[in-house]
Amino acid sequence: MALNTNLTTGRPTFVTHLECSMTGERYEADMLHGLSRVGRPLLVRYDLEGVGAALSKEALTSRETDLWRWRELLPVRHTSDVVSLGEIETPLVPIPKSGGSPNVLVKDEGRLPTGSFKARGLVMAVSMAKALGVTKIAMPTNGNAGAALAAYASRVGIETIIFCPDDTPEINVREVAAQGGRVYRVNGLIDDCGAIVGKGAAEGRWFDFSTLKEPYRIEGKKTMGLELAAQFGWKLPDAIFYPTGGGTGLIGMWKAFDELEALGWIGPERPRMFAVQASGCAPIVRAFEAGEEHAERWEDAATVAAGIRVPRAVGDFLILRAVRASGGRAVAVGDPAILKAVEDCARRDGLLLCPEGGATLAAYREALRTGLVDEDERVVLFNCATGLKYPLPEAPQTLDRFAEIDLGAL
Amino acid sequence: MALNTNLTTGRPTFVTHLECSMTGERYEADMLHGLSRVGRPLLVRYDLEGVGAALSKEALTSRETDLWRWRELLPVRHTSDVVSLGEIETPLVPIPKSGGSPNVLVKDEGRLPTGSFKARGLVMAVSMAKALGVTKIAMPTNGNAGAALAAYASRVGIETIIFCPDDTPEINVREVAAQGGRVYRVNGLIDDCGAIVGKGAAEGRWFDFSTLKEPYRIEGKKTMGLELAAQFGWKLPDAIFYPTGGGTGLIGMWKAFDELEALGWIGPERPRMFAVQASGCAPIVRAFEAGEEHAERWEDAATVAAGIRVPRAVGDFLILRAVRASGGRAVAVGDPAILKAVEDCARRDGLLLCPEGGATLAAYREALRTGLVDEDERVVLFNCATGLKYPLPEAPQTLDRFAEIDLGAL
Ligand SMILES: Cc1ncc(COP(=O)(O)O)c(C=O)c1O
Ligand SMILES: Cc1ncc(COP(=O)(O)O)c(C=O)c1O
Repeated sequence: MALNTNLTTGRPTFVTHLECSMTGERYEADMLHGLSRVGRPLLVRYDLEGVGAALSKEALTSRETDLWRWRELLPVRHTSDVVSLGEIETPLVPIPKSGGSPNVLVKDEGRLPTGSFKARGLVMAVSMAKALGVTKIAMPTNGNAGAALAAYASRVGIETIIFCPDDTPEINVREVAAQGGRVYRVNGLIDDCGAIVGKGAAEGRWFDFSTLKEPYRIEGKKTMGLELAAQFGWKLPDAIFYPTGGGTGLIGMWKAFDELEALGWIGPERPRMFAVQASGCAPIVRAFEAGEEHAERWEDAATVAAGIRVPRAVGDFLILRAVRASGGRAVAVGDPAILKAVEDCARRDGLLLCPEGGATLAAYREALRTGLVDEDERVVLFNCATGLKYPLPEAPQTLDRFAEIDLGAL
Repeated sequence: MALNTNLTTGRPTFVTHLECSMTGERYEADMLHGLSRVGRPLLVRYDLEGVGAALSKEALTSRETDLWRWRELLPVRHTSDVVSLGEIETPLVPIPKSGGSPNVLVKDEGRLPTGSFKARGLVMAVSMAKALGVTKIAMPTNGNAGAALAAYASRVGIETIIFCPDDTPEINVREVAAQGGRVYRVNGLIDDCGAIVGKGAAEGRWFDFSTLKEPYRIEGKKTMGLELAAQFGWKLPDAIFYPTGGGTGLIGMWKAFDELEALGWIGPERPRMFAVQASGCAPIVRAFEAGEEHAERWEDAATVAAGIRVPRAVGDFLILRAVRASGGRAVAVGDPAILKAVEDCARRDGLLLCPEGGATLAAYREALRTGLVDEDERVVLFNCATGLKYPLPEAPQTLDRFAEIDLGAL
C-alpha cells in the first residue's frame, strides 16, 4: 500500500446542502456560512444513498484507519484541500482498576495532533476554509481548540487570531503562539471572548470560527462516532460519557450514528449518551433536570476542567435532544471527584487523563454506584486531551543529592 | 472485527535464545537476563523460518495496525502477559515548508502512550518482566523512559524506582510520580543515575531496567523499523535521521531490517542511518569521525535536548556499526540550530517537535545543504516525543484586558 493513501486519493463527495438545525431551512453547499438566519447551527446534509452506492463497509474497512478514510461522509470536495497532521484513529484503552470494570474503555483523544480532539473539528473546518478562500480566522477558545486551529491554519498559510480567558492553562497559550497564531488573553470567560470575535466578524475583519458557528467543525467531530462504530464492529457501545462544553462532539456523534443507520451499517440502537459537566459550570445539567429545551447562561462558572467551562452553548437544544432521545442523562461532578479520578487512573492504570477526561470517569463511577449503568455494560469514556497539557501535582520526592542516597532506605 | 484483537488473540512465538552482541555467546530464553558476561547487550534471536511459515505479509497487513500486530517477531509468549495502553502505529507527517522538500516525513512518536517512543521499549520490557515474575524495577532516565516505565509497571502492579538528573524537565518528573513511580532527582547525569541503579541491582534490591542492560526494550523499539517497512509498502526510505542517546532505537531498527530481510519481506537495501547528536554531547559523532569502534565518555555534557544528553552508551559499537554499514553518518548540531528548527516547524508546518526531533530536522537541513542527502530522497526524521513535554517559549502577546481591545489594531 502507498503512503498516506487517504490523503492523496481523489474520492467522490456527496454534500447536497446545509440545513438550519432549528427550522430545517436550506442553505447552499460550497459557500461560506456562519449561523442560520435564526442564529442556530447549520448542519451539513449528504446524499446518503449516493454514499451507500459508492462505498461499502468492506471497502471502508480496508483503508488506512485515519480520519480521512471517511471522505465520502465529509464535506471536503478536493483532495488538494485536505490538510493533515496525521489524524490517526484513537485507541480504546481499558482502565480495569480505576474504572472498576473490564468493560470500561477510554477513547484516548490526546493522541491526535496538538494533543486534543479539537484537531478533528479544526482539520475539517480549516480544510473547508482553505477550499472557500478564507484568509483570516478568529476564534474564542478555552485552549485546546486554539492550538489546533493555529497548527492547521499556519500549515496552509491562513492567519489566525485567538482569544482565550486569561486563566487559560499557560501551555495552551504558548502552544498557540508557537504554532503561528496570534493569541490574546481576555479577562472574561469563553463567551466574552466569543463576543469579541463576533464583533470583529460583523465588522468584516475576519471569519468567525466559534464552535458550531461555522458548520464544518461538527463534521470533523462526527468522526468520533464513525470510529467508534468501526472499532466496535458496527455494534455501538451501551453508554458514552462525554465531557460537554459546547457539545460539538456529542452532537457530532449523534449525527454520525444517524448517517450510519441511513447507510444500513448500524441498526436503530443507540448508546445512552451521558453529557458530563462540572458542578461549577453545569448549564446543560440544570436544563436537563428542569425539562427545558434550552439552557440559560451559568453565572460565575468555575472548574479545574477548563475545556468544559462553557457557560452558554449555542447548540444547547441539540445536546439536550440527543441526550434525551438516547435515554441518557446530563450529569455534574465536582472538582474534587474530577481530580481524584485523574489521580487514581494515572496511579493505578497508568493512563494520565486530562481533567475533562477525569470528569467522565468520575461521572461513570457515580453512575455505577447509583445504578444508571451496569458493570457488564460496554462503556466509552472520552479523554479529550492529553493529561500532559495540564499542570500536574508536584512530585512528592524532590531533590535527593547523589552522595546522600541510602539505597537501603528507598 | 472484534475490539483490540492483537491484545487478546493467542499467537505462536518464535524466540529461540539470546545472544551476546559482542561475542555471540548463547543465553537461554525465558529467563531474567541483564548484560552478557562481557558486559555487553544481549540480543533476542528468533526462528525466522518458523515466523515466515506462520505469518504472511498479507496476514500481517490485515491486522489492526498497533505494535502488537508484530507478535510473531516479539518475545512475549503469553497473551495474558501483554500489557498495553494503546500502542498505535505512529503517523508520518510531511513538513514541506520547514523541511524544504515534500519528501521529508516526520515519524511522530509523541502519539504513543506517555507521549514518547519510550513506550515501545518499555511496554515490551514490562510485559517480559511480568512474564518472568519481576516485582521491583529501578531505572535511570532523562525523563521520558521513566514516565513510560512508571505507567506500564503501575498498570500491572510492579513497583518502580526512578532516578533522573536534577535538571530533568519538571513535567517528566511529575508525570512519573503521577503514574505511581517513586522518583528521585540526582545531582549528576544519566550515567550517574545508572550507577546508583546498578549498585542497588548488585545488592539485590531491584531489577535493573537501564536501556540495553535488559534485553527486551530493544525488541519494542525494533517495531519502529517494522512499522516503517509496512508504511512504506516494504520499500524502505532512503535515509533515516535518529536522535541518538543510548541508541536503542537505531540499533532496534537495524535489527528489524535484518529480520525482515531474512523473512524475504524486504530486500538487502537499507536506508542510510544518520545518528544525530547535540554538539554539547556528541560521543558517537566523535568516535565515528575518529574511526573508533567504541565511544569514550563525553565530559560536561550539555544540551537543551535532554533525551540525547547521554555521555556514554553501552551499545556504542552497535550504533557505530549500523551507521557505517548503512553508508550513513553520525552528525552533531548545536542548540541554536535545534531551537530554530523546532520554532520553524511549529510556526510554518504546524507540527510542534520536541528538541530531539528538532535536532533531526536541523541535521537534515545541514545534510541537504552539504549534499549528504538529496531533495528527491525519501527521508524520515524521528520526533521521539511530543513537544508539549518541553518548556515552550513565552507567548509574545500577554495580558490584554477585555475593555481595552482595539479590534482595528489587531
Ligand atoms: C479537553 C476538552 N474536553 C472537552 C471539551 C468540550 O468539548 P465540546 O465543546 O465538544 O463540548 C473541550 C473543549 O474545549 C476540551 O478541550
Ligand atoms: C525524546 C527523545 N529522543 C531521543 C532519545 C534517545 O533515544 P535512544 O536512547 O534510543 O538513543 C530519548 C531518550 O531519552 C528521548 O527521550
